[in-house]
Amino acid sequence: MKLAVVGGGSTYTPELIDGFARLRDTLPIEELVLVDPAADRLELVGGLARRIFAKQGHPGTITTTADLEAGVAGADAVLLQLRVGGQAARNQDETWPLECGCVGQETTGAGGLAKALRTVPVVLDIAERVRRVAPQAWIIDFTNPVGIVTRALLQAGHKAVGLCNVAIGFQRKFAALLDVAPEQVHLDHVGLNHLTWERAVRLGGPRGEDVLPKLIAEHGAAIAADLHMPREIVDRLGVVPSYYLRYYYAHDEVVRELSTSESRASQVAAMEKQLLEMYGDPALDEKPELLAKRGGAFYSEAAVALASSLLRNTGDVQVVNTYNNGTLPFLADDAVIEVPAVVDGTGTTPLPVPPLDPLYAGLIANVTAYEDLALEAALRGGRDRVFKALLSHPLIGQYEYAEALTDKLVAHNREHLAWA
Amino acid sequence: MKLAVVGGGSTYTPELIDGFARLRDTLPIEELVLVDPAADRLELVGGLARRIFAKQGHPGTITTTADLEAGVAGADAVLLQLRVGGQAARNQDETWPLECGCVGQETTGAGGLAKALRTVPVVLDIAERVRRVAPQAWIIDFTNPVGIVTRALLQAGHKAVGLCNVAIGFQRKFAALLDVAPEQVHLDHVGLNHLTWERAVRLGGPRGEDVLPKLIAEHGAAIAADLHMPREIVDRLGVVPSYYLRYYYAHDEVVRELSTSESRASQVAAMEKQLLEMYGDPALDEKPELLAKRGGAFYSEAAVALASSLLRNTGDVQVVNTYNNGTLPFLADDAVIEVPAVVDGTGTTPLPVPPLDPLYAGLIANVTAYEDLALEAALRGGRDRVFKALLSHPLIGQYEYAEALTDKLVAHNREHLAWA
Amino acid sequence: MKLAVVGGGSTYTPELIDGFARLRDTLPIEELVLVDPAADRLELVGGLARRIFAKQGHPGTITTTADLEAGVAGADAVLLQLRVGGQAARNQDETWPLECGCVGQETTGAGGLAKALRTVPVVLDIAERVRRVAPQAWIIDFTNPVGIVTRALLQAGHKAVGLCNVAIGFQRKFAALLDVAPEQVHLDHVGLNHLTWERAVRLGGPRGEDVLPKLIAEHGAAIAADLHMPREIVDRLGVVPSYYLRYYYAHDEVVRELSTSESRASQVAAMEKQLLEMYGDPALDEKPELLAKRGGAFYSEAAVALASSLLRNTGDVQVVNTYNNGTLPFLADDAVIEVPAVVDGTGTTPLPVPPLDPLYAGLIANVTAYEDLALEAALRGGRDRVFKALLSHPLIGQYEYAEALTDKLVAHNREHLAWA
Amino acid sequence: MKLAVVGGGSTYTPELIDGFARLRDTLPIEELVLVDPAADRLELVGGLARRIFAKQGHPGTITTTADLEAGVAGADAVLLQLRVGGQAARNQDETWPLECGCVGQETTGAGGLAKALRTVPVVLDIAERVRRVAPQAWIIDFTNPVGIVTRALLQAGHKAVGLCNVAIGFQRKFAALLDVAPEQVHLDHVGLNHLTWERAVRLGGPRGEDVLPKLIAEHGAAIAADLHMPREIVDRLGVVPSYYLRYYYAHDEVVRELSTSESRASQVAAMEKQLLEMYGDPALDEKPELLAKRGGAFYSEAAVALASSLLRNTGDVQVVNTYNNGTLPFLADDAVIEVPAVVDGTGTTPLPVPPLDPLYAGLIANVTAYEDLALEAALRGGRDRVFKALLSHPLIGQYEYAEALTDKLVAHNREHLAWA
Repeated sequence: MKLAVVGGGSTYTPELIDGFARLRDTLPIEELVLVDPAADRLELVGGLARRIFAKQGHPGTITTTADLEAGVAGADAVLLQLRVGGQAARNQDETWPLECGCVGQETTGAGGLAKALRTVPVVLDIAERVRRVAPQAWIIDFTNPVGIVTRALLQAGHKAVGLCNVAIGFQRKFAALLDVAPEQVHLDHVGLNHLTWERAVRLGGPRGEDVLPKLIAEHGAAIAADLHMPREIVDRLGVVPSYYLRYYYAHDEVVRELSTSESRASQVAAMEKQLLEMYGDPALDEKPELLAKRGGAFYSEAAVALASSLLRNTGDVQVVNTYNNGTLPFLADDAVIEVPAVVDGTGTTPLPVPPLDPLYAGLIANVTAYEDLALEAALRGGRDRVFKALLSHPLIGQYEYAEALTDKLVAHNREHLAWA
Repeated sequence: MKLAVVGGGSTYTPELIDGFARLRDTLPIEELVLVDPAADRLELVGGLARRIFAKQGHPGTITTTADLEAGVAGADAVLLQLRVGGQAARNQDETWPLECGCVGQETTGAGGLAKALRTVPVVLDIAERVRRVAPQAWIIDFTNPVGIVTRALLQAGHKAVGLCNVAIGFQRKFAALLDVAPEQVHLDHVGLNHLTWERAVRLGGPRGEDVLPKLIAEHGAAIAADLHMPREIVDRLGVVPSYYLRYYYAHDEVVRELSTSESRASQVAAMEKQLLEMYGDPALDEKPELLAKRGGAFYSEAAVALASSLLRNTGDVQVVNTYNNGTLPFLADDAVIEVPAVVDGTGTTPLPVPPLDPLYAGLIANVTAYEDLALEAALRGGRDRVFKALLSHPLIGQYEYAEALTDKLVAHNREHLAWA
Repeated sequence: MKLAVVGGGSTYTPELIDGFARLRDTLPIEELVLVDPAADRLELVGGLARRIFAKQGHPGTITTTADLEAGVAGADAVLLQLRVGGQAARNQDETWPLECGCVGQETTGAGGLAKALRTVPVVLDIAERVRRVAPQAWIIDFTNPVGIVTRALLQAGHKAVGLCNVAIGFQRKFAALLDVAPEQVHLDHVGLNHLTWERAVRLGGPRGEDVLPKLIAEHGAAIAADLHMPREIVDRLGVVPSYYLRYYYAHDEVVRELSTSESRASQVAAMEKQLLEMYGDPALDEKPELLAKRGGAFYSEAAVALASSLLRNTGDVQVVNTYNNGTLPFLADDAVIEVPAVVDGTGTTPLPVPPLDPLYAGLIANVTAYEDLALEAALRGGRDRVFKALLSHPLIGQYEYAEALTDKLVAHNREHLAWA
Repeated sequence: MKLAVVGGGSTYTPELIDGFARLRDTLPIEELVLVDPAADRLELVGGLARRIFAKQGHPGTITTTADLEAGVAGADAVLLQLRVGGQAARNQDETWPLECGCVGQETTGAGGLAKALRTVPVVLDIAERVRRVAPQAWIIDFTNPVGIVTRALLQAGHKAVGLCNVAIGFQRKFAALLDVAPEQVHLDHVGLNHLTWERAVRLGGPRGEDVLPKLIAEHGAAIAADLHMPREIVDRLGVVPSYYLRYYYAHDEVVRELSTSESRASQVAAMEKQLLEMYGDPALDEKPELLAKRGGAFYSEAAVALASSLLRNTGDVQVVNTYNNGTLPFLADDAVIEVPAVVDGTGTTPLPVPPLDPLYAGLIANVTAYEDLALEAALRGGRDRVFKALLSHPLIGQYEYAEALTDKLVAHNREHLAWA
């Protein structure tokens, strides 16, 4: 079994490696290739990766390369975790929308659109090259915005699944609060990537008892605090929104916070510098504690589980990003949604979803429309398509802002946009 | 042929009467009853109505009554044009949302919800009484918010059609710009009441040449000025949004305007006072010019046309509010939409609608979800339902505002809400 | 010794009575008259007042009357604590400015101006009548805005002193934190009413050791929490601003809070209803605990101390509102400032004040200019003078808002403004 | 007579040269030195300067140098027109404050403070070197913020006068509207640099008839349009505020404009590029028309007049920035104000100023306090001093913004701040 990680030089990679090492029974990797054009980073990360495998007695080999096609040739699965433009571009995404009083964030709003525009062409080019040298490989996409990127891959006919750590994070969190094993916790998780709600938390199986009302009654304050939302919203809705719904439910408050604090990108950039220094220490043979602060908790567990089910044909249920195909009847079949799905060697098949409250369905429909237009802009380019995507976004929606944000998006991303 | 107008004491009524008089060949009314609990107003308005009929030689009788059931008994059509709480309630709708930085308006946003909550129970009670004494009558609803009120009527099994003057206004406007007869102009008008776009303007028939691009090129500035929107938005979208889309596309600008100017309700209240004084003059036998400023242009033409088609089974095409029934595939069948429909003695049947750009479909889906929740709140009451409807509205969407607006809505409308 | 309290029917009066009873050695009142036009309230409050005196064995008499001149005739001191328009007017002051994104509060900003306009003519009329029947009486003004009202009284030649509980509140708070007797604490308190800073806290006397740095270091968090300000601001400035500086230093945050919560006036109105019910209970013979929540802590102590010094010629130092007379060299002599002053039978003489940091002097100068214009508007009336006062206020300062707020102020206060 | 222009490589210089050539009878320059470290620009600008002199038959010599001391040695007057950090720094000044909803501008608010912090140390260093090699020279400062820079120069004991083109611009504008010669127009111009009002426009002399009411009545619309302010503000105040008062009277509107449009710096940078290309054309021997769009109209006239009066001891009246010395009684003597002054060989002596309306005095006092703190921060550095200056600014005034803007100011200007 061969895996390749595109963007393998990320400071995040040791987290993934640690997961591969711990979970080698679930996913017995024989050959792991880290692919990255940034040779310096790749060397530091690759060295630590090998020391982690060695320390934990993992028998697989780890190699590094800047040559994409050489790296992925013959792979069974290819993980995408790249960031076009790096933390500098992310810092831009988080800053210029604030000038219009709009949220600056790298996966939603105007910043998320900028990231989609930079990312989709690069990912499609990579996927095309993967298809040439590893036609049987599954592409597992972590790269944000996962919904739009996954849809671009699926529309181009690739064997792709989109993956996010929001659902597994809730599963682990709730399991801890309930003091049960994570696999006992089955979520009624529904929506689009970064626009999801946990509507039920069932114990033992997908039809087990729903303990969410009890969880909210007993741990509502802790759950809400984790989401940086007021407790009342969880009590009142009776469901648990994802952290990213803060950008909707508390938009203006978040804008005020962001306007008067250091950007997340800038914090992460400082952390990455520090991590790379640590990775260079030949005595280090485990992931450092600091890495936990970088975000991405449980990504490695989710990736191992997904790859294992795809490659070993397990037929178990996991939360993934995949084609709607009638699951949410108010969306087109080729919309990409994030729901529990049966995963096996043929791919992902969403479980049926109970009807949605209009409170959630309306927002999902609106954001899906934005994603349609965002993907169109990413694939075909042009200032007008960017404008339309921005105007359609529920966090923007106004002509004056859509105009100004279009100008700012283009001005800050010109080097990454072929048409600009 | 007998017609009844519920809310007949409105200062607007002479406009309607003038239309009935001018268009008596289209709609040969024999008996017209103005129903209103406000005896003083009704007397003034009824007197002028009779003088208008007399002057124009209309042979029909006009009577007035405060007794609803007596007034509508045996009617062929009942027009609803009431306003629960009057201009004072409207003034509230236009004011308190501004305290949260949200638009204050009587048909959309938090103010529109307040009006829906006040109006739906009253209209349903009237319709029930109409059904008892005039079971065959068509109910034509002008009462805002027309979409939600019409849906309430249809869900309760009434023979109802919702009517708005936006489409006929555009038809007349475009006809004037094109220098053709109004009936030559066929609109591709689509959306929900007060959330519509003109996507095509066809000459001669529903498949005639689309002259909208030409209209925009030649008269874009005038069209945009009428809508109080920047010309660029019409140029860029290539469609003509309804005036009410200002509350979306220019939300913050409108809030700033409203925050620093006299409310529309207060202007209308002053105008109504002046109008009622005029109506009392026994020498007045036509609608005064001032009435044109009160709004509602072409309502009488639209009402006459609709009633005529329903009662005389014409089978022509008019823009109405009616059940979706698959017309817009992304909405439920029982959503109420505003589109061109064939109107005959059996009711209204929407024409097929070409697929919508996601830019419009996303917003329509979101506002339909709000209307679902608004109707639920209007029918069943309760602070929580009000909160959910507000949170779902794309012009609100934030927890903090939904909470505060719920409090304000209830505080300002307590006397009109049975459950509060 | 005879005292009269104008506005004696206030629910707050029992607090004052309790102070008179406890501190009868300092201020041996023989005759106390509660004057108020609201006969119902006055009876309830007067009854409780007498029961409090009786329980505590105070030998003085308490009478009530709606007749101002009869009540104040021959008094040695007259306390003014009235509220023109009551809590309803206050509720307006706290609400309509929010529609422009401006703070709504009854002593500062546009709401404070409204209160000044309503109050100054009434107070001047009362003072004129006091002068006729009790020419020797001192007028002690608690009525807000104290700075502007006191200046109006002084300019009209009355024997007046303005009093606020901010300084005594800090004295008691700091004494508690330092575990010393309140009279040991001497404040370097400087500014205008509701625009003051504590620059030093001296122990033992006006030249004693300044323990403010120590207080901030040890209790900064508690002090800031009391002020509803972030701790950093106290640490960084090294002085303690009054609570009312929140409206400046945290203006937008306060506006957001006020926009989404019940007005203070509405809370107080509910509390007053409850208090009046309690006062009617003939078994009640002490101030109820609920009264502490109504605000105004230590007002009775401050009033007793001030009246005692004026009437008994003590020559001690108290914080009062009085003519500047060169104390702050950058203000005119007839500006009214709030500083420690020697108080004796001849009136109040400010102590010298060490030079002010421009950070405070600039704001004091600006707000004094506003108070000039506000007083002009209160005395002479007219929309233009209101506009100018609003435009000059540092919390407004913009043409668009000053215009809109002028309209709103006039519309909401017409019945109280002779010229409107 | 020798003049030196520090910052002589500015694209603006040809405007100055053109003025020197046209007005050589007023100011007979024999030797003109353009000093600038940017050799490339200097060569282009110097070449055009010489061609302008030649074409107009001016007998003086023009030399260029990067060596400050060589250039200014023996000069009679030194003009300062430099910009530390260039248009790039200005672009920053105009951008980051918007993220906090505060105006971004290079002479006022947080951007103006940034410019002061960058500029004061550089100007003081230049002035010190001027004093060594040309101790008798007058320093004429155009460099913004002129008020703060002039105060820094005067406090350090330099022979300095601050100059701005606002007053001369109004003089020329009003003269044109009145159809009289500019020298017939005497302004009652008062305030601080970029914070001034024209209170009277007198014809013939400083005691001539005040025609301002007539000007406003007849040309109010044109005057207001020039200032980008609503006409009502000029009508209502009865005075003409400087253009820069937009940042106060229409702050939020300006922020919205700036947030959704290209920065002025970016426009100027594009224009400068184009101008430099033109200047390189050896056939060009006059200032190009495009230069008029760059701003700074009538600066050369004002500079010639001021230098002439200082060097030729004329004793006429001009509007300058100079020490207050009791002119405005509510400011300290060493505040720098902008008023008409007698200018002769001994320097500038302000004319007496009629008392100010509190509407203007309050704002002047507050901004002067800010300028005190800004100069303190510029001279002594430190994050805390920056914070205090920002908190004291009437356009900021809030803790949260002052904190965030301090961080942003430091982050964007680190390379120009010795202490950061």
